[in-house]
Amino acid sequence: MINNSTIDHQLNHRSIRKFKDQTLMPEQLQTLYSVFQHTATSMFMQNASLLHITDEAKRTKIRQLCNQNYVGAEGDLFIFIVDLYRNQQIRQQLGKDDGRVHTTDIFFQAMEDTVLAFQNVANAVESMDLGYVPLGTINDHPLEMLKVLDLPELTFPVLGMQVGIPDQAPQLKPRLPLEFTCFEESYPRDFKVENLKNYDEVVTTYYDLRDANRRIDSFTKQITGAKLNLHETDRDQIAEELQKQGLCLDWKVK
Amino acid sequence: MINNSTIDHQLNHRSIRKFKDQTLMPEQLQTLYSVFQHTATSMFMQNASLLHITDEAKRTKIRQLCNQNYVGAEGDLFIFIVDLYRNQQIRQQLGKDDGRVHTTDIFFQAMEDTVLAFQNVANAVESMDLGYVPLGTINDHPLEMLKVLDLPELTFPVLGMQVGIPDQAPQLKPRLPLEFTCFEESYPRDFKVENLKNYDEVVTTYYDLRDANRRIDSFTKQITGAKLNLHETDRDQIAEELQKQGLCLDWKVK
Repeated sequence: MINNSTIDHQLNHRSIRKFKDQTLMPEQLQTLYSVFQHTATSMFMQNASLLHITDEAKRTKIRQLCNQNYVGAEGDLFIFIVDLYRNQQIRQQLGKDDGRVHTTDIFFQAMEDTVLAFQNVANAVESMDLGYVPLGTINDHPLEMLKVLDLPELTFPVLGMQVGIPDQAPQLKPRLPLEFTCFEESYPRDFKVENLKNYDEVVTTYYDLRDANRRIDSFTKQITGAKLNLHETDRDQIAEELQKQGLCLDWKVK
Repeated sequence: MINNSTIDHQLNHRSIRKFKDQTLMPEQLQTLYSVFQHTATSMFMQNASLLHITDEAKRTKIRQLCNQNYVGAEGDLFIFIVDLYRNQQIRQQLGKDDGRVHTTDIFFQAMEDTVLAFQNVANAVESMDLGYVPLGTINDHPLEMLKVLDLPELTFPVLGMQVGIPDQAPQLKPRLPLEFTCFEESYPRDFKVENLKNYDEVVTTYYDLRDANRRIDSFTKQITGAKLNLHETDRDQIAEELQKQGLCLDWKVK
Protein backbone atom coordinates (compact mmCIF):
# COMPACT_ATOMS: atom_id res chain seq x y z
CA MET A 1 0.00 0.00 0.00
CA ILE A 2 1.20 3.50 -0.85
CA ASN A 3 1.47 5.74 2.19
CA ASN A 4 1.11 9.48 2.43
CA SER A 5 -0.87 11.78 4.69
CA THR A 6 -3.81 12.09 2.28
CA ILE A 7 -4.18 8.35 1.90
CA ASP A 8 -3.63 7.73 5.62
CA HIS A 9 -6.60 9.95 6.37
CA GLN A 10 -8.70 8.31 3.65
CA LEU A 11 -8.07 4.78 4.89
CA ASN A 12 -8.90 5.87 8.42
CA HIS A 13 -12.09 7.72 7.57
CA ARG A 14 -14.82 7.56 10.19
CA SER A 15 -17.95 9.64 10.42
CA ILE A 16 -17.73 11.88 13.48
CA ARG A 17 -21.02 12.59 15.26
CA LYS A 18 -19.77 14.35 18.38
CA PHE A 19 -17.76 17.55 18.18
CA LYS A 20 -16.16 19.95 20.63
CA ASP A 21 -18.09 23.15 21.23
CA GLN A 22 -16.01 25.23 18.87
CA THR A 23 -16.57 26.55 15.36
CA LEU A 24 -14.11 26.75 12.48
CA MET A 25 -11.49 29.47 12.46
CA PRO A 26 -11.90 31.99 9.61
CA GLU A 27 -8.76 30.63 7.98
CA GLN A 28 -10.11 27.07 8.03
CA LEU A 29 -13.45 28.19 6.63
CA GLN A 30 -11.73 30.11 3.85
CA THR A 31 -9.62 27.08 2.99
CA LEU A 32 -12.67 24.82 2.74
CA TYR A 33 -14.35 27.35 0.45
CA SER A 34 -11.26 27.44 -1.78
CA VAL A 35 -11.18 23.66 -1.98
CA PHE A 36 -14.88 23.66 -2.86
CA GLN A 37 -14.14 26.20 -5.58
CA HIS A 38 -11.30 24.21 -7.13
CA THR A 39 -13.20 20.93 -7.52
CA ALA A 40 -13.48 19.48 -11.02
CA THR A 41 -16.71 20.55 -12.75
CA SER A 42 -18.54 19.08 -15.72
CA MET A 43 -18.19 21.11 -18.94
CA PHE A 44 -16.82 23.98 -16.77
CA MET A 45 -20.41 24.88 -15.85
CA GLN A 46 -19.70 25.20 -12.10
CA ASN A 47 -23.12 23.90 -11.11
CA ALA A 48 -22.65 23.68 -7.34
CA SER A 49 -23.05 26.11 -4.46
CA LEU A 50 -22.40 25.92 -0.75
CA LEU A 51 -24.48 27.26 2.13
CA HIS A 52 -22.95 27.79 5.57
CA ILE A 53 -25.72 27.85 8.17
CA THR A 54 -24.96 29.67 11.42
CA ASP A 55 -28.35 31.03 12.49
CA GLU A 56 -29.51 29.09 15.55
CA ALA A 57 -33.19 29.07 14.65
CA LYS A 58 -32.43 27.72 11.19
CA ARG A 59 -30.00 25.13 12.55
CA THR A 60 -32.66 23.95 14.97
CA LYS A 61 -35.23 23.55 12.21
CA ILE A 62 -32.74 21.62 10.09
CA ARG A 63 -31.83 19.42 13.06
CA GLN A 64 -35.50 18.63 13.62
CA LEU A 65 -36.03 17.69 9.96
CA CYS A 66 -32.91 15.51 9.99
CA ASN A 67 -33.91 14.05 13.36
CA GLN A 68 -30.24 13.74 14.42
CA ASN A 69 -29.10 15.60 17.53
CA TYR A 70 -25.66 16.44 16.12
CA VAL A 71 -27.00 18.31 13.08
CA GLY A 72 -26.48 22.04 13.56
CA ALA A 73 -25.21 21.47 17.10
CA GLU A 74 -21.47 21.77 17.93
CA GLY A 75 -19.29 22.68 14.96
CA ASP A 76 -20.27 24.05 11.55
CA LEU A 77 -23.14 23.08 9.27
CA PHE A 78 -22.86 23.17 5.48
CA ILE A 79 -25.42 22.37 2.80
CA PHE A 80 -24.14 21.35 -0.66
CA ILE A 81 -26.49 22.51 -3.38
CA VAL A 82 -27.07 21.62 -7.01
CA ASP A 83 -27.24 25.07 -8.54
CA LEU A 84 -28.53 25.71 -12.05
CA TYR A 85 -30.20 28.95 -10.99
CA ARG A 86 -26.98 30.92 -11.52
CA ASN A 87 -26.54 29.69 -15.08
CA GLN A 88 -30.22 30.20 -15.85
CA GLN A 89 -29.87 33.79 -14.60
CA ILE A 90 -26.81 34.35 -16.78
CA ARG A 91 -28.73 33.14 -19.82
CA GLN A 92 -31.89 35.09 -19.01
CA GLN A 93 -30.12 38.33 -18.13
CA LEU A 94 -28.19 38.10 -21.39
CA GLY A 95 -31.40 37.64 -23.37
CA LYS A 96 -31.26 33.90 -23.99
CA ASP A 97 -33.83 31.19 -23.30
CA ASP A 98 -33.14 28.67 -20.51
CA GLY A 99 -31.64 26.20 -22.98
CA ARG A 100 -30.93 22.79 -21.50
CA VAL A 101 -30.83 23.74 -17.79
CA HIS A 102 -34.10 21.90 -17.11
CA THR A 103 -32.94 18.57 -18.55
CA THR A 104 -32.11 15.41 -16.61
CA ASP A 105 -28.74 15.36 -18.39
CA ILE A 106 -27.72 18.73 -16.97
CA PHE A 107 -29.09 17.84 -13.52
CA PHE A 108 -27.02 14.65 -13.63
CA GLN A 109 -23.90 16.73 -14.30
CA ALA A 110 -24.80 19.25 -11.60
CA MET A 111 -25.33 16.47 -9.09
CA GLU A 112 -21.87 15.16 -9.98
CA ASP A 113 -20.34 18.63 -9.51
CA THR A 114 -21.99 18.95 -6.12
CA VAL A 115 -21.05 15.54 -4.73
CA LEU A 116 -17.48 15.85 -6.05
CA ALA A 117 -17.21 19.15 -4.17
CA PHE A 118 -18.57 17.49 -1.03
CA GLN A 119 -15.89 14.80 -0.99
CA ASN A 120 -13.16 17.26 -1.89
CA VAL A 121 -14.12 19.43 1.10
CA ALA A 122 -14.41 16.29 3.24
CA ASN A 123 -10.83 15.33 2.43
CA ALA A 124 -9.65 18.86 3.23
CA VAL A 125 -11.51 18.68 6.56
CA GLU A 126 -9.76 15.46 7.54
CA SER A 127 -6.38 16.72 6.34
CA MET A 128 -6.71 19.43 9.04
CA ASP A 129 -7.43 16.73 11.65
CA LEU A 130 -11.02 17.87 11.82
CA GLY A 131 -13.91 15.45 11.40
CA TYR A 132 -17.28 15.42 9.65
CA VAL A 133 -20.43 13.44 9.11
CA PRO A 134 -22.30 13.44 5.78
CA LEU A 135 -25.97 14.32 6.23
CA GLY A 136 -28.08 12.44 3.73
CA THR A 137 -30.96 13.07 6.11
CA ILE A 138 -31.40 16.60 4.72
CA ASN A 139 -33.60 14.87 2.16
CA ASP A 140 -35.73 12.97 4.66
CA HIS A 141 -38.39 15.68 4.20
CA PRO A 142 -37.49 17.39 0.92
CA LEU A 143 -40.50 19.72 0.71
CA GLU A 144 -39.96 21.05 4.24
CA MET A 145 -36.21 21.38 3.81
CA LEU A 146 -36.58 23.46 0.66
CA LYS A 147 -38.78 25.84 2.65
CA VAL A 148 -36.36 26.09 5.58
CA LEU A 149 -33.42 26.75 3.27
CA ASP A 150 -35.51 29.15 1.16
CA LEU A 151 -33.92 28.02 -2.09
CA PRO A 152 -34.82 29.44 -5.52
CA GLU A 153 -35.90 27.35 -8.50
CA LEU A 154 -33.24 25.26 -10.22
CA THR A 155 -31.44 24.58 -6.95
CA PHE A 156 -31.64 21.47 -4.78
CA PRO A 157 -29.92 20.49 -1.53
CA VAL A 158 -28.01 17.24 -2.07
CA LEU A 159 -25.95 16.59 1.06
CA GLY A 160 -25.30 18.31 4.36
CA MET A 161 -22.01 18.17 6.26
CA GLN A 162 -21.48 18.75 9.97
CA VAL A 163 -17.83 19.63 10.59
CA GLY A 164 -15.79 20.18 13.73
CA ILE A 165 -13.15 19.07 16.17
CA PRO A 166 -13.81 15.39 16.91
CA ASP A 167 -14.92 14.62 20.44
CA GLN A 168 -15.17 10.88 19.92
CA ALA A 169 -13.02 8.15 18.38
CA PRO A 170 -15.29 5.68 16.61
CA GLN A 171 -14.07 2.28 15.51
CA LEU A 172 -13.20 1.90 11.83
CA LYS A 173 -16.25 0.39 10.14
CA PRO A 174 -15.43 -2.76 8.17
CA ARG A 175 -16.19 -2.41 4.45
CA LEU A 176 -17.08 -4.98 1.81
CA PRO A 177 -13.93 -6.82 0.70
CA LEU A 178 -12.60 -5.57 -2.64
CA GLU A 179 -13.58 -8.74 -4.48
CA PHE A 180 -17.22 -7.62 -4.15
CA THR A 181 -16.79 -4.03 -5.36
CA CYS A 182 -13.69 -3.59 -7.56
CA PHE A 183 -13.68 -5.58 -10.77
CA GLU A 184 -11.23 -6.16 -13.60
CA GLU A 185 -12.61 -5.83 -17.12
CA SER A 186 -16.24 -6.78 -16.63
CA TYR A 187 -18.98 -6.87 -14.04
CA PRO A 188 -19.45 -10.35 -12.51
CA ARG A 189 -23.14 -11.27 -12.52
CA ASP A 190 -22.55 -14.46 -10.53
CA PHE A 191 -22.73 -12.88 -7.09
CA LYS A 192 -23.37 -15.47 -4.36
CA VAL A 193 -24.63 -14.29 -1.01
CA GLU A 194 -22.95 -17.19 0.84
CA ASN A 195 -19.59 -15.64 -0.04
CA LEU A 196 -20.46 -12.79 2.35
CA LYS A 197 -20.44 -15.09 5.37
CA ASN A 198 -17.02 -14.02 6.65
CA TYR A 199 -17.75 -10.36 6.03
CA ASP A 200 -21.06 -10.67 7.84
CA GLU A 201 -19.23 -11.96 10.90
CA VAL A 202 -16.69 -9.14 10.76
CA VAL A 203 -19.44 -6.52 10.60
CA THR A 204 -21.10 -7.84 13.76
CA THR A 205 -17.87 -7.24 15.70
CA TYR A 206 -18.26 -3.50 15.04
CA TYR A 207 -19.69 -1.40 17.86
CA ASP A 208 -21.69 1.52 16.63
CA LEU A 209 -21.10 4.51 18.89
CA ARG A 210 -24.66 5.55 18.31
CA ASP A 211 -25.62 2.70 20.59
CA ALA A 212 -22.52 1.59 22.46
CA ASN A 213 -24.25 -1.27 24.19
CA ARG A 214 -24.94 -3.40 21.20
CA ARG A 215 -23.13 -4.66 18.15
CA ILE A 216 -24.65 -3.89 14.75
CA ASP A 217 -26.46 -6.31 12.48
CA SER A 218 -24.51 -8.22 9.86
CA PHE A 219 -24.34 -6.61 6.40
CA THR A 220 -26.82 -8.98 4.77
CA LYS A 221 -29.19 -8.50 7.70
CA GLN A 222 -29.04 -4.74 7.18
CA ILE A 223 -29.68 -5.08 3.44
CA THR A 224 -32.61 -7.45 3.94
CA GLY A 225 -33.96 -5.36 6.82
CA ALA A 226 -35.93 -2.20 7.52
CA LYS A 227 -33.92 0.34 5.59
CA LEU A 228 -34.50 -1.32 2.22
CA ASN A 229 -37.84 -2.98 2.96
CA LEU A 230 -40.84 -1.44 1.24
CA HIS A 231 -42.25 1.39 3.33
CA GLU A 232 -43.66 4.85 2.91
CA THR A 233 -41.32 7.76 3.42
CA ASP A 234 -41.17 11.47 2.63
CA ARG A 235 -37.93 10.67 0.79
CA ASP A 236 -40.16 9.57 -2.07
CA GLN A 237 -40.89 13.27 -2.59
CA ILE A 238 -37.40 13.73 -4.04
CA ALA A 239 -38.41 13.15 -7.67
CA GLU A 240 -41.44 15.43 -7.42
CA GLU A 241 -39.58 18.19 -5.59
CA LEU A 242 -36.80 18.13 -8.18
CA GLN A 243 -39.39 18.74 -10.87
CA LYS A 244 -41.11 21.47 -8.84
CA GLN A 245 -37.69 23.12 -8.67
CA GLY A 246 -37.57 23.04 -12.48
CA LEU A 247 -35.04 20.22 -12.63
CA CYS A 248 -35.25 16.98 -14.64
CA LEU A 249 -38.35 18.23 -16.49
CA ASP A 250 -37.76 15.89 -19.41
CA TRP A 251 -37.92 12.78 -17.25
CA LYS A 252 -40.19 10.27 -18.94
CA VAL A 253 -41.92 7.31 -17.32
CA LYS A 254 -41.75 4.35 -19.65
CA MET B 1 -5.07 29.71 3.96
CA ILE B 2 -4.25 26.44 5.70
CA ASN B 3 -1.44 24.54 4.00
CA ASN B 4 -0.81 20.83 3.91
CA SER B 5 -0.03 18.40 1.11
CA THR B 6 -3.69 17.35 0.63
CA ILE B 7 -4.89 20.93 0.30
CA ASP B 8 -1.92 21.94 -1.88
CA HIS B 9 -2.93 19.27 -4.36
CA GLN B 10 -6.58 20.27 -4.19
CA LEU B 11 -5.92 23.95 -4.85
CA ASN B 12 -3.70 23.02 -7.78
CA HIS B 13 -6.07 20.54 -9.36
CA ARG B 14 -5.99 20.40 -13.14
CA SER B 15 -7.50 17.80 -15.42
CA ILE B 16 -4.70 15.90 -17.16
CA ARG B 17 -5.45 14.74 -20.70
CA LYS B 18 -2.01 13.51 -21.78
CA PHE B 19 -0.24 10.73 -19.90
CA LYS B 20 3.05 8.87 -20.21
CA ASP B 21 2.82 5.43 -21.75
CA GLN B 22 2.84 3.58 -18.47
CA THR B 23 0.15 1.91 -16.40
CA LEU B 24 -0.30 1.93 -12.64
CA MET B 25 1.94 -0.25 -10.48
CA PRO B 26 0.03 -3.02 -8.65
CA GLU B 27 0.66 -1.24 -5.35
CA GLN B 28 -0.84 1.99 -6.67
CA LEU B 29 -3.86 0.15 -8.06
CA GLN B 30 -4.40 -1.63 -4.75
CA THR B 31 -4.19 1.66 -2.88
CA LEU B 32 -6.80 3.29 -5.12
CA TYR B 33 -9.12 0.32 -4.58
CA SER B 34 -8.69 0.61 -0.81
CA VAL B 35 -9.48 4.32 -0.92
CA PHE B 36 -12.56 3.56 -3.02
CA GLN B 37 -13.60 0.99 -0.43
CA HIS B 38 -13.23 3.35 2.53
CA THR B 39 -15.36 6.17 1.14
CA ALA B 40 -18.38 7.26 3.18
CA THR B 41 -21.56 5.46 2.12
CA SER B 42 -25.21 6.32 2.66
CA MET B 43 -26.94 4.13 5.27
CA PHE B 44 -23.93 1.76 5.03
CA MET B 45 -25.46 0.29 1.86
CA GLN B 46 -22.19 0.40 -0.14
CA ASN B 47 -23.97 1.12 -3.42
CA ALA B 48 -20.95 1.74 -5.65
CA SER B 49 -18.66 -0.49 -7.71
CA LEU B 50 -15.56 0.12 -9.76
CA LEU B 51 -14.58 -1.34 -13.12
CA HIS B 52 -10.96 -1.30 -14.30
CA ILE B 53 -10.87 -1.67 -18.08
CA THR B 54 -7.68 -3.04 -19.58
CA ASP B 55 -8.87 -4.91 -22.66
CA GLU B 56 -7.76 -2.97 -25.74
CA ALA B 57 -10.84 -3.72 -27.82
CA LYS B 58 -13.12 -2.54 -25.04
CA ARG B 59 -11.00 0.56 -24.40
CA THR B 60 -11.20 1.43 -28.08
CA LYS B 61 -14.99 1.12 -28.10
CA ILE B 62 -15.25 3.30 -25.01
CA ARG B 63 -12.88 5.86 -26.55
CA GLN B 64 -15.04 5.99 -29.66
CA LEU B 65 -18.23 6.51 -27.66
CA CYS B 66 -16.56 9.24 -25.57
CA ASN B 67 -15.03 10.76 -28.71
CA GLN B 68 -11.91 11.83 -26.77
CA ASN B 69 -8.55 10.48 -27.90
CA TYR B 70 -7.15 10.17 -24.36
CA VAL B 71 -9.91 7.84 -23.11
CA GLY B 72 -8.52 4.33 -22.75
CA ALA B 73 -5.21 5.42 -24.30
CA GLU B 74 -2.09 5.89 -22.11
CA GLY B 75 -2.64 5.15 -18.42
CA ASP B 76 -5.52 3.35 -16.70
CA LEU B 77 -9.26 3.59 -17.34
CA PHE B 78 -11.83 3.24 -14.54
CA ILE B 79 -15.62 3.32 -14.65
CA PHE B 80 -17.48 4.29 -11.47
CA ILE B 81 -20.81 2.49 -11.24
CA VAL B 82 -24.00 2.96 -9.27
CA ASP B 83 -24.59 -0.57 -8.08
CA LEU B 84 -27.87 -1.73 -6.59
CA TYR B 85 -27.59 -5.14 -8.27
CA ARG B 86 -25.49 -6.50 -5.39
CA ASN B 87 -28.03 -5.52 -2.74
CA GLN B 88 -30.93 -6.76 -4.86
CA GLN B 89 -29.13 -10.11 -5.18
CA ILE B 90 -28.59 -10.26 -1.41
CA ARG B 91 -32.30 -9.70 -0.86
CA GLN B 92 -33.44 -12.13 -3.55
CA GLN B 93 -31.02 -14.92 -2.58
CA LEU B 94 -32.19 -14.58 1.03
CA GLY B 95 -35.82 -14.90 -0.02
CA LYS B 96 -36.88 -11.25 0.19
CA ASP B 97 -38.57 -9.01 -2.37
CA ASP B 98 -36.53 -6.19 -3.97
CA GLY B 99 -37.81 -3.69 -1.41
CA ARG B 100 -36.89 -0.09 -2.16
CA VAL B 101 -33.95 -0.72 -4.52
CA HIS B 102 -35.94 0.55 -7.53
CA THR B 103 -36.83 3.91 -5.97
CA THR B 104 -35.47 7.31 -6.93
CA ASP B 105 -34.55 7.84 -3.28
CA ILE B 106 -32.22 4.86 -3.23
CA PHE B 107 -30.78 5.74 -6.64
CA PHE B 108 -30.09 9.25 -5.31
CA GLN B 109 -28.13 7.74 -2.41
CA ALA B 110 -26.29 5.32 -4.69
CA MET B 111 -25.32 8.16 -7.01
CA GLU B 112 -23.93 10.01 -3.99
CA ASP B 113 -21.94 6.93 -2.91
CA THR B 114 -20.49 6.59 -6.39
CA VAL B 115 -19.49 10.22 -6.92
CA LEU B 116 -18.05 10.47 -3.40
CA ALA B 117 -15.89 7.44 -4.20
CA PHE B 118 -14.80 9.07 -7.46
CA GLN B 119 -13.51 12.22 -5.76
CA ASN B 120 -11.91 10.23 -2.96
CA VAL B 121 -9.96 8.17 -5.50
CA ALA B 122 -9.17 11.36 -7.43
CA ASN B 123 -7.57 12.90 -4.35
CA ALA B 124 -5.57 9.73 -3.73
CA VAL B 125 -4.39 9.83 -7.36
CA GLU B 126 -3.13 13.40 -7.01
CA SER B 127 -1.54 12.67 -3.63
CA MET B 128 0.72 10.19 -5.48
CA ASP B 129 1.64 12.91 -8.00
CA LEU B 130 -0.38 11.14 -10.65
CA GLY B 131 -3.03 12.93 -12.67
CA TYR B 132 -6.55 12.20 -13.93
CA VAL B 133 -9.37 13.50 -16.03
CA PRO B 134 -13.05 12.90 -15.14
CA LEU B 135 -14.96 11.38 -18.05
CA GLY B 136 -18.53 12.62 -18.05
CA THR B 137 -18.57 11.66 -21.71
CA ILE B 138 -19.20 8.03 -20.80
CA ASN B 139 -22.85 9.10 -20.82
CA ASP B 140 -22.78 10.75 -24.22
CA HIS B 141 -24.36 7.57 -25.64
CA PRO B 142 -25.85 5.79 -22.60
CA LEU B 143 -27.55 2.95 -24.47
CA GLU B 144 -24.37 2.04 -26.37
CA MET B 145 -22.15 2.38 -23.29
CA LEU B 146 -24.31 0.00 -21.26
CA LYS B 147 -23.86 -2.57 -24.03
CA VAL B 148 -20.09 -2.14 -24.24
CA LEU B 149 -19.71 -2.42 -20.47
CA ASP B 150 -22.19 -5.33 -20.35
CA LEU B 151 -23.71 -4.18 -17.09
CA PRO B 152 -26.56 -6.02 -15.30
CA GLU B 153 -29.82 -4.43 -14.24
CA LEU B 154 -29.71 -2.03 -11.30
CA THR B 155 -26.28 -0.75 -12.26
CA PHE B 156 -25.40 2.44 -14.13
CA PRO B 157 -22.06 3.98 -15.16
CA VAL B 158 -21.81 7.48 -13.68
CA LEU B 159 -18.30 8.75 -14.34
CA GLY B 160 -15.15 7.46 -15.96
CA MET B 161 -11.62 8.35 -14.88
CA GLN B 162 -8.45 8.19 -16.95
CA VAL B 163 -5.44 8.06 -14.63
CA GLY B 164 -1.71 8.16 -15.23
CA ILE B 165 1.61 9.93 -15.05
CA PRO B 166 1.04 13.48 -16.34
CA ASP B 167 2.74 14.31 -19.62
CA GLN B 168 1.50 17.89 -19.76
CA ALA B 169 1.28 20.83 -17.36
CA PRO B 170 -1.95 22.70 -18.01
CA GLN B 171 -2.57 26.16 -16.65
CA LEU B 172 -4.76 26.39 -13.54
CA LYS B 173 -8.28 27.16 -14.75
CA PRO B 174 -9.76 30.23 -13.07
CA ARG B 175 -12.92 29.44 -11.08
CA LEU B 176 -15.91 31.56 -10.13
CA PRO B 177 -14.98 33.87 -7.23
CA LEU B 178 -16.31 32.62 -3.90
CA GLU B 179 -18.89 35.41 -3.62
CA PHE B 180 -20.83 33.66 -6.41
CA THR B 181 -20.78 30.13 -4.99
CA CYS B 182 -20.26 30.08 -1.19
CA PHE B 183 -22.96 31.77 0.83
CA GLU B 184 -23.51 32.56 4.49
CA GLU B 185 -26.93 31.68 5.90
CA SER B 186 -29.13 32.00 2.84
CA TYR B 187 -29.07 31.77 -0.92
CA PRO B 188 -28.92 35.21 -2.59
CA ARG B 189 -31.51 35.43 -5.34
CA ASP B 190 -30.27 38.84 -6.53
CA PHE B 191 -27.58 37.52 -8.88
CA LYS B 192 -26.47 40.15 -11.39
CA VAL B 193 -24.65 39.05 -14.49
CA GLU B 194 -22.75 42.35 -14.76
CA ASN B 195 -20.88 41.39 -11.59
CA LEU B 196 -19.18 38.64 -13.60
CA LYS B 197 -17.39 41.15 -15.82
CA ASN B 198 -14.01 40.84 -14.11
CA TYR B 199 -14.25 37.07 -13.93
CA ASP B 200 -15.20 36.90 -17.59
CA GLU B 201 -12.00 38.77 -18.44
CA VAL B 202 -9.90 36.47 -16.26
CA VAL B 203 -11.34 33.36 -17.96
CA THR B 204 -10.39 34.62 -21.41
CA THR B 205 -6.73 34.78 -20.32
CA TYR B 206 -6.76 31.01 -19.86
CA TYR B 207 -5.27 28.92 -22.64
CA ASP B 208 -6.91 25.57 -23.05
CA LEU B 209 -4.29 22.95 -23.92
CA ARG B 210 -6.88 21.20 -26.04
CA ASP B 211 -6.39 24.00 -28.50
CA ALA B 212 -3.20 25.82 -27.57
CA ASN B 213 -3.61 28.46 -30.25
CA ARG B 214 -6.65 30.17 -28.87
CA ARG B 215 -7.93 31.50 -25.59
CA ILE B 216 -11.23 30.17 -24.35
CA ASP B 217 -14.55 32.01 -24.33
CA SER B 218 -15.54 34.03 -21.28
CA PHE B 219 -17.63 32.20 -18.68
CA THR B 220 -20.90 33.92 -19.56
CA LYS B 221 -20.23 33.26 -23.25
CA GLN B 222 -19.81 29.56 -22.48
CA ILE B 223 -23.02 29.45 -20.44
CA THR B 224 -25.02 31.27 -23.12
CA GLY B 225 -23.42 29.20 -25.88
CA ALA B 226 -23.63 25.83 -27.55
CA LYS B 227 -23.23 23.54 -24.55
CA LEU B 228 -26.39 24.79 -22.83
CA ASN B 229 -28.35 25.84 -25.91
CA LEU B 230 -31.30 23.64 -26.80
CA HIS B 231 -30.18 20.78 -29.00
CA GLU B 232 -30.77 17.10 -29.47
CA THR B 233 -28.32 14.73 -27.89
CA ASP B 234 -28.11 11.06 -26.93
CA ARG B 235 -27.48 12.29 -23.38
CA ASP B 236 -31.24 12.73 -23.16
CA GLN B 237 -31.42 8.93 -23.04
CA ILE B 238 -30.09 9.00 -19.46
CA ALA B 239 -33.52 9.07 -17.80
CA GLU B 240 -34.91 6.30 -20.00
CA GLU B 241 -31.82 4.10 -19.65
CA LEU B 242 -31.89 4.46 -15.87
CA GLN B 243 -35.45 3.15 -15.89
CA LYS B 244 -34.60 0.33 -18.31
CA GLN B 245 -31.92 -0.63 -15.77
CA GLY B 246 -34.63 -0.84 -13.11
CA LEU B 247 -33.59 2.39 -11.38
CA CYS B 248 -35.81 5.35 -10.45
CA LEU B 249 -38.95 3.40 -11.34
CA ASP B 250 -41.13 5.55 -9.11
CA TRP B 251 -40.25 8.75 -10.97
CA LYS B 252 -43.46 10.63 -11.72
CA VAL B 253 -43.92 13.33 -14.31
CA LYS B 254 -46.07 16.06 -12.85
